[in-house]
Amino acid sequence: MKKEKDLKEYTIRTDLIVDLFDINQEEEGILVTENTQEDIHILEVEIMKEENKLHKKKGKYITISYQDVTDKENSKALEQVIVTELKKLMESLKIPETAKCLVVGLGNRASTPDALGPKTVEQVLVTRYLYEIEEIEVDQNYRNVAALIPGVTGNTGIESSDIILGIIDRIKPDFVIAIDALASSSMDRINKTIQMTDSGIHPGSGVYNNRKELSYETLKIPVISIGVPTVIEAFVLVSDTMQYLLKHFSYNKENYQKNKLVPVTLRNYKDYNRELSSQEKVKLLGEIGTLSEEQVKELIFEVLTPIGYNMMVTPKEIDFVMDKTSEVLANAINKSLHKNFDI
Amino acid sequence: MKKEKDLKEYTIRTDLIVDLFDINQEEEGILVTENTQEDIHILEVEIMKEENKLHKKKGKYITISYQDVTDKENSKALEQVIVTELKKLMESLKIPETAKCLVVGLGNRASTPDALGPKTVEQVLVTRYLYEIEEIEVDQNYRNVAALIPGVTGNTGIESSDIILGIIDRIKPDFVIAIDALASSSMDRINKTIQMTDSGIHPGSGVYNNRKELSYETLKIPVISIGVPTVIEAFVLVSDTMQYLLKHFSYNKENYQKNKLVPVTLRNYKDYNRELSSQEKVKLLGEIGTLSEEQVKELIFEVLTPIGYNMMVTPKEIDFVMDKTSEVLANAINKSLHKNFDI
Amino acid sequence: MKKEKDLKEYTIRTDLIVDLFDINQEEEGILVTENTQEDIHILEVEIMKEENKLHKKKGKYITISYQDVTDKENSKALEQVIVTELKKLMESLKIPETAKCLVVGLGNRASTPDALGPKTVEQVLVTRYLYEIEEIEVDQNYRNVAALIPGVTGNTGIESSDIILGIIDRIKPDFVIAIDALASSSMDRINKTIQMTDSGIHPGSGVYNNRKELSYETLKIPVISIGVPTVIEAFVLVSDTMQYLLKHFSYNKENYQKNKLVPVTLRNYKDYNRELSSQEKVKLLGEIGTLSEEQVKELIFEVLTPIGYNMMVTPKEIDFVMDKTSEVLANAINKSLHKNFDI
Amino acid sequence: MKKEKDLKEYTIRTDLIVDLFDINQEEEGILVTENTQEDIHILEVEIMKEENKLHKKKGKYITISYQDVTDKENSKALEQVIVTELKKLMESLKIPETAKCLVVGLGNRASTPDALGPKTVEQVLVTRYLYEIEEIEVDQNYRNVAALIPGVTGNTGIESSDIILGIIDRIKPDFVIAIDALASSSMDRINKTIQMTDSGIHPGSGVYNNRKELSYETLKIPVISIGVPTVIEAFVLVSDTMQYLLKHFSYNKENYQKNKLVPVTLRNYKDYNRELSSQEKVKLLGEIGTLSEEQVKELIFEVLTPIGYNMMVTPKEIDFVMDKTSEVLANAINKSLHKNFDI
Repeated sequence: MKKEKDLKEYTIRTDLIVDLFDINQEEEGILVTENTQEDIHILEVEIMKEENKLHKKKGKYITISYQDVTDKENSKALEQVIVTELKKLMESLKIPETAKCLVVGLGNRASTPDALGPKTVEQVLVTRYLYEIEEIEVDQNYRNVAALIPGVTGNTGIESSDIILGIIDRIKPDFVIAIDALASSSMDRINKTIQMTDSGIHPGSGVYNNRKELSYETLKIPVISIGVPTVIEAFVLVSDTMQYLLKHFSYNKENYQKNKLVPVTLRNYKDYNRELSSQEKVKLLGEIGTLSEEQVKELIFEVLTPIGYNMMVTPKEIDFVMDKTSEVLANAINKSLHKNFDI
Repeated sequence: MKKEKDLKEYTIRTDLIVDLFDINQEEEGILVTENTQEDIHILEVEIMKEENKLHKKKGKYITISYQDVTDKENSKALEQVIVTELKKLMESLKIPETAKCLVVGLGNRASTPDALGPKTVEQVLVTRYLYEIEEIEVDQNYRNVAALIPGVTGNTGIESSDIILGIIDRIKPDFVIAIDALASSSMDRINKTIQMTDSGIHPGSGVYNNRKELSYETLKIPVISIGVPTVIEAFVLVSDTMQYLLKHFSYNKENYQKNKLVPVTLRNYKDYNRELSSQEKVKLLGEIGTLSEEQVKELIFEVLTPIGYNMMVTPKEIDFVMDKTSEVLANAINKSLHKNFDI
Repeated sequence: MKKEKDLKEYTIRTDLIVDLFDINQEEEGILVTENTQEDIHILEVEIMKEENKLHKKKGKYITISYQDVTDKENSKALEQVIVTELKKLMESLKIPETAKCLVVGLGNRASTPDALGPKTVEQVLVTRYLYEIEEIEVDQNYRNVAALIPGVTGNTGIESSDIILGIIDRIKPDFVIAIDALASSSMDRINKTIQMTDSGIHPGSGVYNNRKELSYETLKIPVISIGVPTVIEAFVLVSDTMQYLLKHFSYNKENYQKNKLVPVTLRNYKDYNRELSSQEKVKLLGEIGTLSEEQVKELIFEVLTPIGYNMMVTPKEIDFVMDKTSEVLANAINKSLHKNFDI
Repeated sequence: MKKEKDLKEYTIRTDLIVDLFDINQEEEGILVTENTQEDIHILEVEIMKEENKLHKKKGKYITISYQDVTDKENSKALEQVIVTELKKLMESLKIPETAKCLVVGLGNRASTPDALGPKTVEQVLVTRYLYEIEEIEVDQNYRNVAALIPGVTGNTGIESSDIILGIIDRIKPDFVIAIDALASSSMDRINKTIQMTDSGIHPGSGVYNNRKELSYETLKIPVISIGVPTVIEAFVLVSDTMQYLLKHFSYNKENYQKNKLVPVTLRNYKDYNRELSSQEKVKLLGEIGTLSEEQVKELIFEVLTPIGYNMMVTPKEIDFVMDKTSEVLANAINKSLHKNFDI
């Protein structure tokens, strides 16, 4: 078995700060605020020093956790939360109302779970060309907004960051909003989490390989990124299932008497929390039972990768969920960027 | 742990006969022929009695196994094999050259891995409306062919079988060819297997629930179904991975010395075959190590279903693979139905 | 020049009753009501006898005329008008709240201006499959609704009416709502008119050839059809332009002094109404100037058809307009069919 | 009536050189070669001086005229002609086999007739990212190719030329191939002509407004543009029809006896060539009959523009034609760029 140190080099990066830490475990230089509105949970993490235990870049990380976005009421409430948080983030970055915005939709339009960025940007209200025509006086309640769908490197042969940098050089926006689908490191977050941050984003970390970062450091203007985990890789599914397997045993053992007439597939143990003892784990899962969650992930990654089976896992109704999520994001972005959008 | 008998009731049906049996294990009433052309393997199984060990319906089952369909040469060879096998199947059903065909594309156009049927049918050469116009004399080298994409029950509110039966009643075709995406019961078959059979098909067994069968019994005309496994459910991925985990250990143990400088993720052990001993299995996987492959599948199904996590697993490049597979299928169907298609 | 009588045989049928008559010209057996709400004009025509001057079938014809549907406010007002009129039509047909509905989207999904029916039906709330599952008790505020997109004969080889009849035979709905794109006989109506009628519809009259009628007579249940003119054929464009040419001359002659500094392309003469004298018409357009509007249409049809140039004319932003129109129609249908849709 | 000189300012530019001149009318500094292969006609025009009678830029203009591209044989022959001509053009520009290419698909993906560029580029074989990875040694028979779909200004708010220039700055290709749908100035050319030139292209001249030119002068590297007329504007249709109207009269007058039993809509007069006398023209069309073709175009443009009716005219089967045309173009580009593409 590999030792902790060795694991690092293989570690699959998670894009979600919420996967990284126990929010009760306070630390100097990390500010945490939590907030719940109806069924929506908002976690704000501010990392104030470049060197920190989370190994994350300095910046604000806002994690919005929600339930089923295909429900009308949920989606309206969610939209409102995103507007509020996005405006706060823009304020904290001191972005004035007259600042010009470039909205970038990262990802691959042809792959359903990776199409979130392009689908969202297609619904963003673009005004820059009106500002460019001298004879037109644009209503100042509509910000100067341009939009870009750079495509994926596999199709263009060009790094997204090169495309974006090239365009920034020419049109000189004041800040960037980038939307991307992410890979989740947990089944529980898929299509149920939005992360907004001013610390940058790696295009293509969702479905394809890591690419050059888009951030203040690389683009020289503020970058707000909005990411939604829409897929998990197969190795995450398998290792998460291992944990649920243990939970399932624990739950069914304890509730045997109560449940014996309930069909197994209807015994929802999701919120059950008793940990199995180490001994029980080993009995059930042998040596695998001795590994930490992270170690199991690494192991399964090592099992699936050489045989080419680290596939993509999505909910069955992914196309419908992507439609709704992109609609919510686009509405929220429009309302945050354009004062008069809703009127 | 559930006993063999109990397992049956939960068993997730596989649509692929090739998953069901050991072809060396001959049995009365089951005729097996094998054949390999270049990299394509053809398995013909004829089940001659309604009562049989495989619990499958009487009929011919042709399983074509192939490699990467996105490779031009592979896809050409595959197309030719399908033409040959489809024509043989039509002959064995005594379908004359003048018989009218209804081609049906089952599945959901909006879900990439389930869109195989609709995508294929869109490329089929349809001629029936020419035959219906009295003044036109149709070249008899083009068969009378109609096409139908019935949609999925979730969108139409109507069983596919009801739509198809209603149309058969009105247009009276002589036989049906139905194309559908299937769920695979093994990672190894996904997008690498085509099954053709004259024994019928269950619309929607790929991504959604089972529906009423389309077969000679229900439609009263011969039905040739062509199915391609394009997704696996999460429980299959997890249980397959368990088997690969054991293989991975076995391989790495035996080849430790040879491989120690090769990165773990490059050690391809796929074709390695030494079984671990029961003792080794228990050491590694505890009680799980004592279960049969099928038992592990059932168990994982029971773990994932109650918490709503029995997701859909596809290769990352699924949209591209679907484009190519539907093209190969449509070409093969066109060449099999229309004498002059290629000229 | 052809005589009036001869013209009839070539006459291209208009699907819009509003094209056919001068509403001031009252007639026995034809009831006309007009109504304007904000910018939306509603014309209800009831034809009470099978034999009538308009050569149209007995029935109610509701024509809703509106402005730009891509404007948010317009589209909301329009949606409300459609709901009101559709409900009135259902009431007049004595369709009870428990009546089962089949919604049919006619037309070709692959042709932007002809995709209105399919696009609308994709957004209709379908419930029939819930009603079919015995164990589920469906909220009676949601009607039993099924949906069908039959495709076009060119792709399926089957008449739409055969597909629909086949399905009606099997699922026995109580009434049908059919949505289709129409060909307009005037540039002014394109994407600015909705016609609802209980007298039936001819699938495919929009972009392709006439097909068998869908009506009470053929389906044996009430049929409400909703049609929107989304294209005009080239011959209509040309002949309409001839009329505008005359208007343009008349206007510019009369307003020469006033306009001489206005660029020609900005002189909007659309609402200008002085007719040119016959003499003026002949001076400008020669023998063509002596023809009636209808005769010009016939003539241009005769000019374009033999050389295969009777093309399809659409506004440049047709894809966007189709998105919005289908959204308005689907919302209105959902609200009319399902009591609780909006809550 | 406007005088010749005044007309100039309104003149709608044609993108097709073939519309501009009578090839028999030789001129110094303009080299013309013609060539016919089966049904495909190739016209090469080389303009050798910046100042020339055609008011076109210096450069090579290759016009390929063909029949129905949806016919398999035609499309194969056409593909071969494009490969030959494109290679010749690359040679004449002294583009070496190792030169890096950026392929640009201009136009709007959401508008069927304007989607030619994006659809073609999606099928181009991209290799640049392989060349960028140090460890990979790329087969030199595959050229370094990148691809870009910049979108349209209406959706991005950015001029296509700015996007392309920005990217050229960063990835430094050696030459550009740009594909765009054009507006035709004649019904006869629509989907039947390909123009290739090294003199540059104006993005968006097809369906939207003129934009900044892409050419050697603006990009500082060779630009090969490939344009296909896929739409005509309404004013072209109307004025072309006027000419056909005259032809139709002339033909029917002369062939009255012969044709009197043939239905009018079947009398194909397309290739009939007798000109009517001026007197006959005036008799039929009045003052309009005295105008030149170009003057009629200007007039109709002036009639349709102020009332917002200068619509878009396409063949009815445009979606299918676009599929086939983009396939032919992409194949031809791939074969021209990559030595080993076909092997």
